[in-house]
Amino acid sequence: MCEANVYLINEAGKEELLFELVDKIRPENEKLVLENIFGQQKILSAQIKEMSLASHRVVVEMVKKPE
Amino acid sequence: MCEANVYLINEAGKEELLFELVDKIRPENEKLVLENIFGQQKILSAQIKEMSLASHRVVVEMVKKPE
Repeated sequence: MCEANVYLINEAGKEELLFELVDKIRPENEKLVLENIFGQQKILSAQIKEMSLASHRVVVEMVKKPE
Repeated sequence: MCEANVYLINEAGKEELLFELVDKIRPENEKLVLENIFGQQKILSAQIKEMSLASHRVVVEMVKKPE
């Protein structure tokens, strides 16, 4: 199985596990639509920072709002 | 092995195979840095459109320049 774990960089700069067994990832406007192998979705105001498919790892970060 | 094939949507709207056995993907400014399992890189002015990790499929599209 080639699904990935999605990690979110928190305010302290550390990676938190956000969503497991993610199959589909689709950027949509300023959002990221994540879907796991069970068809469950999470939509968040984030962007992809980096991913390594061989390591089953996708790192995302929240989109900073202009101040 | 969980690497993916990266497809680029061409001007005719069809998907062309761009890069095989891609492990790492990293957006950087307006560009996308792709790296395959052999460490070879391709950098292009593109963005991720959608991906399905279970299908080993990543679809990217060129970033449109303002006219």
